Amino acid sequence: MDGGMTDLHMNALALEIADGMDEAAAQLRVVSHTLGNGARVIDAGITVDGGYDAGLALAEICMGGLGSVTYAPVMIGTENWPAVAVWTDHPAVSCMASQYAGWAISVEKFFGMGSGPLRAQARVEKELYEKLGYAETAEHGVLVLEGRTPPDERVAQWVADKARLKPEQLTFVIAPTASIAGAVQISARILETGLHKMETLGFDVRKIVSAIGTAPLPPVARNDLRAIGRTNDCILYGGQARYTVRASDAELAELAPKVPASASKDYGTPFYDIFQRYGGDFYKIDPLLFSPAEVWLTSTESGKTYHAGRLAPDVLAASCYPA
Amino acid sequence: MDGGMTDLHMNALALEIADGMDEAAAQLRVVSHTLGNGARVIDAGITVDGGYDAGLALAEICMGGLGSVTYAPVMIGTENWPAVAVWTDHPAVSCMASQYAGWAISVEKFFGMGSGPLRAQARVEKELYEKLGYAETAEHGVLVLEGRTPPDERVAQWVADKARLKPEQLTFVIAPTASIAGAVQISARILETGLHKMETLGFDVRKIVSAIGTAPLPPVARNDLRAIGRTNDCILYGGQARYTVRASDAELAELAPKVPASASKDYGTPFYDIFQRYGGDFYKIDPLLFSPAEVWLTSTESGKTYHAGRLAPDVLAASCYPA
Amino acid sequence: MDGGMTDLHMNALALEIADGMDEAAAQLRVVSHTLGNGARVIDAGITVDGGYDAGLALAEICMGGLGSVTYAPVMIGTENWPAVAVWTDHPAVSCMASQYAGWAISVEKFFGMGSGPLRAQARVEKELYEKLGYAETAEHGVLVLEGRTPPDERVAQWVADKARLKPEQLTFVIAPTASIAGAVQISARILETGLHKMETLGFDVRKIVSAIGTAPLPPVARNDLRAIGRTNDCILYGGQARYTVRASDAELAELAPKVPASASKDYGTPFYDIFQRYGGDFYKIDPLLFSPAEVWLTSTESGKTYHAGRLAPDVLAASCYPA
Repeated sequence: MDGGMTDLHMNALALEIADGMDEAAAQLRVVSHTLGNGARVIDAGITVDGGYDAGLALAEICMGGLGSVTYAPVMIGTENWPAVAVWTDHPAVSCMASQYAGWAISVEKFFGMGSGPLRAQARVEKELYEKLGYAETAEHGVLVLEGRTPPDERVAQWVADKARLKPEQLTFVIAPTASIAGAVQISARILETGLHKMETLGFDVRKIVSAIGTAPLPPVARNDLRAIGRTNDCILYGGQARYTVRASDAELAELAPKVPASASKDYGTPFYDIFQRYGGDFYKIDPLLFSPAEVWLTSTESGKTYHAGRLAPDVLAASCYPA
Repeated sequence: MDGGMTDLHMNALALEIADGMDEAAAQLRVVSHTLGNGARVIDAGITVDGGYDAGLALAEICMGGLGSVTYAPVMIGTENWPAVAVWTDHPAVSCMASQYAGWAISVEKFFGMGSGPLRAQARVEKELYEKLGYAETAEHGVLVLEGRTPPDERVAQWVADKARLKPEQLTFVIAPTASIAGAVQISARILETGLHKMETLGFDVRKIVSAIGTAPLPPVARNDLRAIGRTNDCILYGGQARYTVRASDAELAELAPKVPASASKDYGTPFYDIFQRYGGDFYKIDPLLFSPAEVWLTSTESGKTYHAGRLAPDVLAASCYPA
Repeated sequence: MDGGMTDLHMNALALEIADGMDEAAAQLRVVSHTLGNGARVIDAGITVDGGYDAGLALAEICMGGLGSVTYAPVMIGTENWPAVAVWTDHPAVSCMASQYAGWAISVEKFFGMGSGPLRAQARVEKELYEKLGYAETAEHGVLVLEGRTPPDERVAQWVADKARLKPEQLTFVIAPTASIAGAVQISARILETGLHKMETLGFDVRKIVSAIGTAPLPPVARNDLRAIGRTNDCILYGGQARYTVRASDAELAELAPKVPASASKDYGTPFYDIFQRYGGDFYKIDPLLFSPAEVWLTSTESGKTYHAGRLAPDVLAASCYPA
């Protein structure tokens, strides 16, 4: 690509992980089927249990194989939580060009936000990919969906057309929010939510050199809406993200205070309650709410770190373990 | 099996890990020998040092290859401890059908409790395997022993007969309690001890969907009895286990308070002291003592979590680091 | 070797890791080139960004493939830090015969301290290798350098001569201190610094059976001198190391209090300030300063643990995150 980054082959890396899921399907408790037009659909939590193993695979597929996701305990307030520890050396590409759920897949009655590396092949989100200067040319694409309705042939054909591939060149991986794997892949967005917030604030996220962070894992919720609440709260009130940035002190001093969730006017109560407060209208919620509880931005120029935000153990506990 | 679960091939998964130990024997500081009748015995701590690497392999063999065991620091009270982080998406099969040391291997003067996936092939513990609805048909079986006396030909033949295999189809892996690998494989029983307790309390452990937890690692003890004390205390006073369960609020509300070690009348002092109090008679100790210090049971139906127990940093420290 | 330890093939293990870096060069953001005389040089942070992935590879190469290095969060004082969790079952060989940066590579204007398994092939540090009773006979050697000047043909030839190999049998891996990979490989010296201190105190480090520990990761510094300060402080004020030792209570009771950094008269302020206090003369700094903040030595004979030192969260924070 002219002036852009080298193709890092996230679709190929993700395909390898998806093939591994398929091969160890019984172990991961996932199930795979092929649609009439040849597209593969891996269910990691709708008709099957999925679990922690499927969750890691799903999270690493979301990150296009360019991020590491492991489980580790993390102390939040005075309690140990099970958590994901996430790092990447390709923050802009892994988080924004792949993990971010930015592609609206809307085909007749089917609707879902697509994430994963196929986005970088399709580049329907034109403006974003131009900013990122990133594109992939893949033989096989992998798309992740969060939901309960697996894509059918028409959806697969629609996606294939947009991505200039054939349905048989596609793998879809899907898990509902209210499933273990679904929760894992959302907590694993700890770095991505910070990048997305910085992108929204007008910062060129290609300046972010590497990132490392943690976010707690919520207990499985009773339905997807409740699950959206808990998983968001794990990021907003329990997530910690550290970014190494090729930027000046002046830039980071201005940027940092705006990045954490606490910079939003809606910060402070469980996400589900905020959602209710706005009458169940997502679009009334401050879009700047969605980011890690606590961030550290280190300038490679000065070695100085700009820290903002804080954990909110009480809000997190109220969301995940209500009395 | 009729009405039972699919064969998850734990013996094959464990064999792969055991073969890996053999291939990297110098690196893992284990030693392998073949008995006259063809059975393989891998010593991970009797005549050799074994260590952390061998401990992970041993722990994952115990879990039949269906659990993940890694080292991670965990905060207990005000101190960081080295710990094992363990998770499985097959709690009933991995922990009860494999990891639980439930098979009494008693051949002339030899006695040991066998754990590992060969149990699921032998199914000597008939009642348990009927409840679990689980059986394996393996070409090669792997059995783990905790002790200082490696099995000889007669022991191997006896085990082979019970398992309807030939001795050359068997691998034994053994480590003493007072060894690094021995300690690791016991701390890695953090999830299993909770399942076993629930099973004892009459709960159908097949309802447990997935589990994740941590337990500290004790320093090596001066003899096996002292080591039994410390390793037990790591579970009883330092272990934390979270279970996702397909059960109602009513069931879990009743179950949860009974699960942690603190529910036992013997809870509160280092295991070695309890043992002495009962004149060295294991069978006088409350069998309900053996479970994690702290548990969380989350209902998939309601998304509610039932929490019980607590860490006891002082008892743990008194056991592992006496003044 | 007569009376010595078996060759554990650290150079072969490290070569495998180095080859892996080369194959995934774009992913790890490293770049590899071959000198005119055939030596390979892998740059993990001078002209490229390197990162967390390269850092793990570099750290495991330093340890000769006989140590495990992973990222995990660790609580220091009241804050979570990103950290490396390190363990080895071959402390003397992995840390002293490989990881320790003990080989002065001085060729005309080039100067650097070499670490990594090639040291055990070259054995220029004769006295140390005689004490360790360890030597390798390798087909291909791997040397790690911390710095900004990659070795050229003359340096490679000089090293090859000393190691009785040809330049084409050598791989150099290099990263500056002020780089992510550079910082990771230094924090990963948490166990090594304790061993080196014990060695300096006259203790036979071959008695150390296994070791496990953690050290925080510093934010990238603005130049190498500042980076030396921060990385050292991560060990001195944030590092925790546990050693299982084949030694008596008497030996360990005497040894333990001398091991942690706090035993040094120079302990207590950020390393950079100590350095300035001595007018920038490294050799005036107490050599006994360089060791973990906190250590635990467990006797395999008695099962007793000798604990010394403490974390210094305030000094660590002042160094890494100055106001």
